[in-house]
Amino acid sequence: MYTNIKIVLVNTTHSGNIGGVARAMKNMGLSNLVLVEPKSFPSDEASARAAGADDLLTSAIVVSSLQEAVADCELVFGTSARERHIPWPILDPREMSGVVQQAKKADDEKTIAVVFGREDRGLTNEELHLCQHHVCIPSVQEFSSLNIAAAVQVIAYELRVAFLKMEDLKSLDAPKWGTSWDAPLATQQELELMFEHFESTMTKTEFLDPDNPRQLMTRLRRLLMRALPDKIEVNILRGMLTSISKKIDK
Amino acid sequence: MYTNIKIVLVNTTHSGNIGGVARAMKNMGLSNLVLVEPKSFPSDEASARAAGADDLLTSAIVVSSLQEAVADCELVFGTSARERHIPWPILDPREMSGVVQQAKKADDEKTIAVVFGREDRGLTNEELHLCQHHVCIPSVQEFSSLNIAAAVQVIAYELRVAFLKMEDLKSLDAPKWGTSWDAPLATQQELELMFEHFESTMTKTEFLDPDNPRQLMTRLRRLLMRALPDKIEVNILRGMLTSISKKIDK
Repeated sequence: MYTNIKIVLVNTTHSGNIGGVARAMKNMGLSNLVLVEPKSFPSDEASARAAGADDLLTSAIVVSSLQEAVADCELVFGTSARERHIPWPILDPREMSGVVQQAKKADDEKTIAVVFGREDRGLTNEELHLCQHHVCIPSVQEFSSLNIAAAVQVIAYELRVAFLKMEDLKSLDAPKWGTSWDAPLATQQELELMFEHFESTMTKTEFLDPDNPRQLMTRLRRLLMRALPDKIEVNILRGMLTSISKKIDK
Repeated sequence: MYTNIKIVLVNTTHSGNIGGVARAMKNMGLSNLVLVEPKSFPSDEASARAAGADDLLTSAIVVSSLQEAVADCELVFGTSARERHIPWPILDPREMSGVVQQAKKADDEKTIAVVFGREDRGLTNEELHLCQHHVCIPSVQEFSSLNIAAAVQVIAYELRVAFLKMEDLKSLDAPKWGTSWDAPLATQQELELMFEHFESTMTKTEFLDPDNPRQLMTRLRRLLMRALPDKIEVNILRGMLTSISKKIDK
């Protein structure tokens, strides 16, 4: 995962949320948590919600101001839900992860912070002005305020997707259907033999009338072709056809 | 926001999580929550964590099985963290939202479900086999299990981003599979009836041994599910099965 990315929480009120944030971060491969004057920390509630991400709580750094938290950062993003009096350039989380990706490409060691405000009223204008970029999660206007752990989850997820994409580009090898498969795909010839087998068997069951075939074979072909059958699947279908034929001939 | 998208939670243990899910959904414009045998619902904890999304809890539907929850759905996504014995096509959340976007472009009324499993062990294989697509959030392998509300947050966020993009592109019209389709997709219930029909017919031809079914039905299901059969195709397959049965009985 990207290194040197801090998640900074300002004046968090509910300590359970700090645990939720730690878990969301660890799930997505982030590990640097910085707390600016949390109301209560450490706490049992935070540990409970962390559900195994206690190591992030243990290593979390507590500071007394946002200035202090971001002093060493080259890129600071402030999350914001509200429209501000003076509009600031606003990125959505995907654009933000694009900016991070660019920055990391240029210099992998670049130190980056994403800052999250209070549960009830976010970051102050003064705090937002410490951030080069403002990031807004596209929630619905009438119910726009995310739980802080949920907001961190979305941001951390976008960072991870961008990171994985970058890793992918390093070694282009996109496996089929997102997972390694258990059987090789059937060849075109194996598919044709299977369709012939379907045709002869269906004629035998009188489902297919060779004098009036309608679109039966075309539709069957379209259905199975678009699933890209593998060799085992073709064998199963042909085994099924053979069993039908045998049973009929008995 | 997209209509007719259900979030289905199976056997949720911690009622606070149900509230967290409701909040995440409402933030992203989703409103249909379906609970399959929750351990405790309604509850004060759920309402507290919902933080203003109580209306979703009030309108939530409680059912007794996943089958019931998805019976009317044309597209069912099951979220999964683990590798399975028989690999199923896996999408990441962004690919999933692309599939939803395509489906919604073709038919805005299409009913879609995204299914989330138990906090401690997700969905069973049987439950995952009711889903055409499996969705995996790209968490880090050593700490892969997201809080369920966090997982819903990521999925709902991707659906919202895709929705907003679609609103942007509304004039552009790129329907399913790159072309307009001639038949509506089969519902989950129609698919289940088709698989039952396959099972009984294949037992009759003795291709399937009910005492030793091996992975036959699972593989057939995987093959056909990933093709997303339409109603005509399902009718053809069932017509074929009926013709086989008749011929054998003759």
